[in-house]
Amino acid sequence: MSTRYVSGVQLARLLGEVPHERPFYAALAREVRALVLDGRLALRTRLPAERDLAGALGVSRTTVTAAYDRLRDEGFVESRQGAGSWTALPPTKMTASPAREVPSVSPPFGAGRFGMAHAPEGAGFIDLGCATPGAPRIFEEAVAAATAELPRYSGGPGYEPAGLAELREVIADGYAARGVPTRPDQIVVTTGAQHAFTLLTQMMVDTGDAVMVERPTYPHALGALRRRGARLVPVGVNEGWDLELIAGSMRQAAVRLAYTVADFHNPTGRLMGEDDRAALVDAARRADAFLVADETFAELGHDLSAPRPAPLAAFDQGGRVITIGSASKLLWGGLRIGWIRATAPLARRLVLLREAVDMASPVLDQLIVRELLLRVDEVRAERAATLVARRDALAAALREDLPGWRFTLPDGGMSLWARLGAPVATLLSEAAGRYGVRVVPGPVFGADGVLEDCVRLPYVLPPDVLRTAVERLAAAYREVEAAPVARPLPAYV
Amino acid sequence: MSTRYVSGVQLARLLGEVPHERPFYAALAREVRALVLDGRLALRTRLPAERDLAGALGVSRTTVTAAYDRLRDEGFVESRQGAGSWTALPPTKMTASPAREVPSVSPPFGAGRFGMAHAPEGAGFIDLGCATPGAPRIFEEAVAAATAELPRYSGGPGYEPAGLAELREVIADGYAARGVPTRPDQIVVTTGAQHAFTLLTQMMVDTGDAVMVERPTYPHALGALRRRGARLVPVGVNEGWDLELIAGSMRQAAVRLAYTVADFHNPTGRLMGEDDRAALVDAARRADAFLVADETFAELGHDLSAPRPAPLAAFDQGGRVITIGSASKLLWGGLRIGWIRATAPLARRLVLLREAVDMASPVLDQLIVRELLLRVDEVRAERAATLVARRDALAAALREDLPGWRFTLPDGGMSLWARLGAPVATLLSEAAGRYGVRVVPGPVFGADGVLEDCVRLPYVLPPDVLRTAVERLAAAYREVEAAPVARPLPAYV
Repeated sequence: MSTRYVSGVQLARLLGEVPHERPFYAALAREVRALVLDGRLALRTRLPAERDLAGALGVSRTTVTAAYDRLRDEGFVESRQGAGSWTALPPTKMTASPAREVPSVSPPFGAGRFGMAHAPEGAGFIDLGCATPGAPRIFEEAVAAATAELPRYSGGPGYEPAGLAELREVIADGYAARGVPTRPDQIVVTTGAQHAFTLLTQMMVDTGDAVMVERPTYPHALGALRRRGARLVPVGVNEGWDLELIAGSMRQAAVRLAYTVADFHNPTGRLMGEDDRAALVDAARRADAFLVADETFAELGHDLSAPRPAPLAAFDQGGRVITIGSASKLLWGGLRIGWIRATAPLARRLVLLREAVDMASPVLDQLIVRELLLRVDEVRAERAATLVARRDALAAALREDLPGWRFTLPDGGMSLWARLGAPVATLLSEAAGRYGVRVVPGPVFGADGVLEDCVRLPYVLPPDVLRTAVERLAAAYREVEAAPVARPLPAYV
Repeated sequence: MSTRYVSGVQLARLLGEVPHERPFYAALAREVRALVLDGRLALRTRLPAERDLAGALGVSRTTVTAAYDRLRDEGFVESRQGAGSWTALPPTKMTASPAREVPSVSPPFGAGRFGMAHAPEGAGFIDLGCATPGAPRIFEEAVAAATAELPRYSGGPGYEPAGLAELREVIADGYAARGVPTRPDQIVVTTGAQHAFTLLTQMMVDTGDAVMVERPTYPHALGALRRRGARLVPVGVNEGWDLELIAGSMRQAAVRLAYTVADFHNPTGRLMGEDDRAALVDAARRADAFLVADETFAELGHDLSAPRPAPLAAFDQGGRVITIGSASKLLWGGLRIGWIRATAPLARRLVLLREAVDMASPVLDQLIVRELLLRVDEVRAERAATLVARRDALAAALREDLPGWRFTLPDGGMSLWARLGAPVATLLSEAAGRYGVRVVPGPVFGADGVLEDCVRLPYVLPPDVLRTAVERLAAAYREVEAAPVARPLPAYV
């Protein structure tokens, strides 16, 4: 399962002094989790056998077993009979249970602190882990219109692996309107953007293939590439895209595929300019690499009167740019509809592959997305108005309560990328959990356990909730500043 | 991509005498397709370079290029730059375009024959490739009820990787009612049964792992296993399950996973008895293998008063039986909802994995499935009444027009498995296409290119359409009988 391995002795050294708390297994689990979270213990590293770690730590094997069990429950360790256990990251938790009011937030540092493992997600807990909004106002009308269309389909088998022709036409028209002439047979409807990227990696990435990723980038994209055994080639984009550097890395690493979020980048919110777009497509051409452009956030510009750069595909002559689109952020995540734009032959191969993976996408959801896309200007206007207000509320609160943090105000997307000025994001995330805020630390967005001075702050919740969240983050940050890391950072294994 | 390779000389020998038609590339493509279809050229075999095959056949390289292109278009060949080309099977075509009336079928052998590649699927063409029905009568009511519930969810992000709690409860209750106590945290909602099986193979099957499959079995299950690089261990079930043989193979092949459709088997329609179920679970236990029970057809018994055997999971003590359920056949395929029942820890791991594959399943579809499952007895009664009438019409037509074919009348499911008495299923399928019927030949359901004397005949279309289909099949069969295979079967490479 994994080629990396850490011995009992090595892991004991990495752990340093585990606090002698009771139960000890919980402390041990927490410390291992910290090593995984801040990247000192690389992902998919095979863990030592329980008796080896027990011996190295001088504790009973039962204690190690209990710690591994806890880590497995939390998703930081995966195991398989016969293959041992290895480190992992639990995915960002997102919930679709009946929409809970985020309550008017009780005094943040009042009544009691929440233990991280048992943080009550009702009772005032604020989840900044999830950067995705509810459905737009016209949703109900779109559902009604789609439902009225449904009987035209429900008498048949309901499978269309490429997607409903009616939806593909609307999607193709959308690209044409943005200056990229597109035929419906170039579109494959998928079950969301993540599904689209998973399909692409299954078709185009084999074990050991070099794949360029931005650092930071969308964590689930990294997950999909890791599962394919890709060799990740990260390029830093914290300060924007350095095309000279990117072109050089692409050539030198013999990159086969590059994954980019050029339109309101996740998580930095940056928008790539047209010159850089032309240069990026040219670099891909020179390196003979495919370029996957994730446009999940492309329609979420905050100023609808601002000129939009042409899509990356507009700079492409040779079918080298593959575009991913998604209903999840613009329309609604609960719809599970995304799509891929590619050349017609590639689209056909994707259809064959997707059919063997999950057959087809849901018909009613496709009809709803079609209705919403036909009125996409209304949706964009609503999103822009809401997001600008929330972005500004978040930014104002940060400037007031956490004046040391630095950020660039995004012109689109749904999240703000804050630089803390100190490599404490993971510690801050843990402390914030106790103060009733969930926040995702920078390293989760990196391919290699860096970015410890960054956190992603989505602004999809209402302004007052965001203000309370920032108050709590400020309190957590003061705590982290006051109690610097107790253990020295041991050597990287 | 593939470990098998066929040289230009070997392929030329396999092809034998390619008819000298014009354009020659089309004849060449057709003959290669035939080799793939009847299994003489194994799937995922790497094809020779174009110039090598051109040399071996004594034709121009352009001709071979054109033939490969044609095969690629048809899905019988896949290619990737740098990795060459290899054999593949196009998946069964199924369409969800607005339900077309299957017309009152023009005289079957009249006006003109349809070329296979250009068979007009409107104009009286009958598709027996697709064994899946339209939605049940109460569908519209269920959609209305689900739509009314939707606002409770559409204000939130819409992601629930495990599935909506409300749906998982109803599914768990359904198992409990069948004698298998189940908690909702043992259920993972997926995007259809194929997606469920794909997830399971991704979690449990690595390259080279031995996986037992029934022969015949569901083709897309074979596809998912092949993509994982599984070593397939087929056991024949044409005459039912031989548990002694199965138990022996499981042990000897060190099978890690076994895939079974014990409830109205696809494609044979057989139902496994309780003794065999107990023995199968026991064999899996002894072999230390997991058993994946695909219950896609389990609720589609034709006689609702007949006693139902207990689910395979009822015979399981150790979390060894993993059950797949699906809305596609019982409810509607256009919903794209399936599920997995497993132990709670395994379910949790599946949730983490599925989140990285496609995040979650669509909310509205889950709500619709919940409404339909709450009234599942009505749906089952409707399905049974319809399917019995269609099965009987199909059987009567077969007895009349094709008295030499043999079959066992299924007690459930949606298709009949006919034995032709001669290994001509692929030829029959090609001829039937010219007569305006699409039928899937036996080898598609086999792991290793056998079953040439079988075809699957779904009975989801109306009785008069089925009767016309059988008339056309009979005509095609007469043609195939009259013109025996022109080329001798060459040796298997």
